[in-house]
Parts: sequence; C-alpha cells; structure tokens
Amino acid sequence: MLAVTILGNNSAVPAFNRHPTSQVVTIDGNSFLVDCGEGTQNQMMEYKIRRSKISHIFISHLHGDHYFGLIGLLNSFGLLNRQQDLHLFGPAPLQEILDIQLKVADTVLPFKFCFHPILKEGILVDEEKFSIGCFPTDHHIECYGFTFMEKKRARRLLPEKVREWEIPSHFYERLTQGEDYIRKDGSIIKNEWVTEEGAKGKVYAFCADTKYDERIIPHIKSADLVYHETTYLNNLAERATARYHSTTGQAALIAKKAAVKKLLIGHFSSKYDSLDEFENEVSAVFENTELALEGVTYRV
Amino acid sequence: MLAVTILGNNSAVPAFNRHPTSQVVTIDGNSFLVDCGEGTQNQMMEYKIRRSKISHIFISHLHGDHYFGLIGLLNSFGLLNRQQDLHLFGPAPLQEILDIQLKVADTVLPFKFCFHPILKEGILVDEEKFSIGCFPTDHHIECYGFTFMEKKRARRLLPEKVREWEIPSHFYERLTQGEDYIRKDGSIIKNEWVTEEGAKGKVYAFCADTKYDERIIPHIKSADLVYHETTYLNNLAERATARYHSTTGQAALIAKKAAVKKLLIGHFSSKYDSLDEFENEVSAVFENTELALEGVTYRV
Repeated sequence: MLAVTILGNNSAVPAFNRHPTSQVVTIDGNSFLVDCGEGTQNQMMEYKIRRSKISHIFISHLHGDHYFGLIGLLNSFGLLNRQQDLHLFGPAPLQEILDIQLKVADTVLPFKFCFHPILKEGILVDEEKFSIGCFPTDHHIECYGFTFMEKKRARRLLPEKVREWEIPSHFYERLTQGEDYIRKDGSIIKNEWVTEEGAKGKVYAFCADTKYDERIIPHIKSADLVYHETTYLNNLAERATARYHSTTGQAALIAKKAAVKKLLIGHFSSKYDSLDEFENEVSAVFENTELALEGVTYRV
Repeated sequence: MLAVTILGNNSAVPAFNRHPTSQVVTIDGNSFLVDCGEGTQNQMMEYKIRRSKISHIFISHLHGDHYFGLIGLLNSFGLLNRQQDLHLFGPAPLQEILDIQLKVADTVLPFKFCFHPILKEGILVDEEKFSIGCFPTDHHIECYGFTFMEKKRARRLLPEKVREWEIPSHFYERLTQGEDYIRKDGSIIKNEWVTEEGAKGKVYAFCADTKYDERIIPHIKSADLVYHETTYLNNLAERATARYHSTTGQAALIAKKAAVKKLLIGHFSSKYDSLDEFENEVSAVFENTELALEGVTYRV
C-alpha cells in the first residue's frame, strides 16, 4: 500500500491555520517524511503519526518553510532516546546547518544518523519492494522533487498451467521471480507459459517548489498520484514566474502533459484564505484533482 | 507599565499542548521577545501579539527549546517586508547559525538587523525610562537570565512648596529632574525642599534555565516579579541537578532568599500532564507564586 498524509499545505509564512510543507509517505509499512517545516513535530502529534516509525527524511530544498522544523524533530528524537537509524537526504549545506546547532547545544544523538547529500538526480533508496528517486525542479535555489515507486509485483502463477506442466510446488516461488523451469531431461518450461505479469507498482511523485517546467514531465510520466505546487491562482502568473512558483493552470497543464492519473495541489500562498478557487481553476484543465488538506491521507 | 505574556511554558519536547519557552515583555509601550522556541510565531498569532511591535529579541541560550523558532520568525519578518530595525541579543554562536541559514536560502532581510553577542553580565539596553540587563545562570551550556528594570520615576513636585518659594512654572520640569533653583539674588532653593522622591521603578527578572545557584540572588534581589524555572517536582532533585535544572523547592528557596515580591514558575518537564502539584510544592515555601500559563499576561 502506497499513501501520503499531508501535514502542512501552506507556503512561506503560516496563515489561516495552514502549516508549512510536510508530508508522510508510507510504502509497504515503511514511513518517510518529506520536508519538515516549522512545527512539523506538532503536526505529527496532532495527526497521530508515530515519529519513531520514520526511517528516512527527504528535504527538497533549503527554504525555511520546507525544513525549519527538522532540527527540532531531530532534537526531540534524541530527547525521546530514539534507537533506530535515521537517514536524511537533502541539499549538501544541510549538514553544516545541523552540525553547528547540535554542537553548540552539546547534543549527541543517541541513534545512528546518516546524512546523504543529494548531488544529482537518480535513485536514493533501492529496496526489494520499492525505490525512491529524486529529480531537479526549477526553483530559486537548488531544489528536488521525489518519486516513490513500488516495484512491479512478482509474476502471478497460472494454476492450471503449472499443474499441466507438472512443476513441483517448491519451485513456484522462483517462477514468480521470472525463472524458467528446467526438467530432468533438460527440456525447458518457459516462465511465460506458466505465469502472467504481476500488478504494476504504483508511483507517487512530489514536485516540491517549482515554476512551470516541462523538464519534470519525464520524471512523473503516467504516475498514479502527483503533488504539484499551486502557490498562486491563474491571475498571478507573472508573480509565480518571478518567484519560481506555479499557478493552478500551470500545475494542471503539467499533469495533463505527463498523463498522470491524479493530481494533488498544495503549497498555497498565505494571501489566500479560501482554497475553493484553486480547485475550480485546476479542475477546469485537469479534472481528477484534489486539494491537499492537512491531516488527510491520500491512498495511491 | 511593565508586564510579561507567556507564549510557551514547557521544556524540551512539546507536550500536553504546552509549547517551548517564549515570552513577551512590555515596558512603557515597547515589546521585547525573550526566547523563541519552535512555533513561537504561531503562538504570537494565537495570542494576538503584534509581531511588528517587537524591537528586540533576547535569547538566553542555545538549547533548541529556547531558540529553534527564531530563524522562522526572522524569515517571516522578511517575507512580511518588515521595515523597522531589529536587535537580537544572545550567545555569540547564534550569529553563524542564522547567517548560514539565510545564506543558503539566498535571503536578504529587508530591515536593519543587528546582532549583539552577549559576552558577559551587564546592561544590554539603556533607555530613558528603562534598562535591560543580563546575568549568567548555571546551566549545561552558556546561559543568561535577563532583568527588565523601569527607571526610577521623576521626582514629584510639592505644589504648596513650589508656590511658597515662588518658583516659576517653566522650571517645574527641571525640578522633577532633581535640579536646584537659583534665584536672581544668587540664593539657592534646594530641590528636596520643593519635591519628593518619585515612585520606584518595577523590576521583572527571567532566570532562564538554571540549576539551584545562589549566585543569581544579587541579580534578582527584591525584584517585583521573578520567573524561575521548575522543570521538576521535589522528588526529582537529583535528576534536576544532573541536568542543570531546578525543582519547585529550589525555585521557591531562591525567591525567598532574594526577597522577591512574586514568583512565576515555568519550563515544566514534558513528563508532567497536570501542573497542580508544581503550584502546591512552591507555595508551601514561597506563598506568592503563580504558574506561568500560556496566553496569560502578568502585570508587574
């Protein structure tokens, strides 16, 4: 199961009880934190996210609304005597920012903490059942989006066929991995005669902060769910571009061109009280759209 | 008028809807922020503190629960296009911590921002009507308490006497400043013949984080209101000392020995849900005590 829970859907200055960017992605029982604006640890308590379950944290870029809550969360992990390893991925200068703050406080984290600077696009985590990658976006400073990809499921046995070809049951597991079966007489039972393709793995992509940029399309192509920022409504397209952000119409166009299945929009400017117009404007171009609302879990 | 509004009364990890340390001290229409734990800017919104009114910020020490909200507040000041000067006082390494975070985000603050490293005890701000000083406390890392002192009011005219000595009214103002009046014939009307002492200025002292340490007594002697931390109840005195914190009984004893008029207690450990026992234990030793409650303003 792949899902994302929104902890903060606002940009920049907190407003209208909306919080800066943070979300928790769960895949196959693992929990990943994506961005960590100020107050994220409170949002985790508010929405009953078990902090100890977080094994990896991904920081898209070093604007405060995406990471000012990180040092507080790490500090709390320490005070709560966390023991599990923690992996952090983010732009390289993050290391120095954290190090100096831990050092002046004379804080030694009681768990193994590994920082992995993101240097270029590619795969960051590669596990048996899923992988996590990153891609650059076009923002004011170095910024990355993230893709969470379930791996293709194992091939499915065709029960009648495996019986027909008299394949012993101890070999079934290897059939699901795609192996052919070789009989004692040396003849080969081709894998595709007795199995069929497993279900395609689901994909969730988080596009971080970005202005309209078609270069992200190949990275999110056909994804099941894509979070794209819509900091501004359509009438502020000029401001969006000047500030390296996107409008509703631009997010919808990217979703359409990338043929994604569903679009989730967020990172709303603090100038907007109501979000209704965001949904209206995006849906006019790309129908299968939802507002990213805090505390809500979106299953992919 | 001297008053303090509590924005956060908890220590370390946020818990039971209590927030990390922060308070706003107002003197004579000026607003000063003392410590700035994570989420302080939200607490300011919650309790309708006008952020733009804050002219000076004082950070007691560099443990996260006292300053992790500072960079977010500065950043918001920038995004809100603040124009007024801002003065920050705190331990010297704070400069580097802020600088690096502003630099990686390519943030240029639109207002004049002056950092004043605290290097030793003494007067930090000296204005016509008040002064603000600092003193060291005994904590795990370099830590300072702060005193907010109204200056003695101007001397008060004795109406009958000034008439009796026929002092012209244009000189009244100078009489309140303590000057003698010299008549045309060279004879002197002594100031104390025609005026009396003005009201004594009020004093508020914030003792930051500290273990029991009688060296702070001279700095808070006879103060009208003193905030002293009570991280733990009496039965955890050993833990308090080991962690450079104080118990209820220790705070009460300091207040008693310093002959302060009123004691405010806070910085409660996250292990306590109810605060009733804190009030009971302190009051048993020092009666005029109040719990520091978030959102409440205590007039000195």
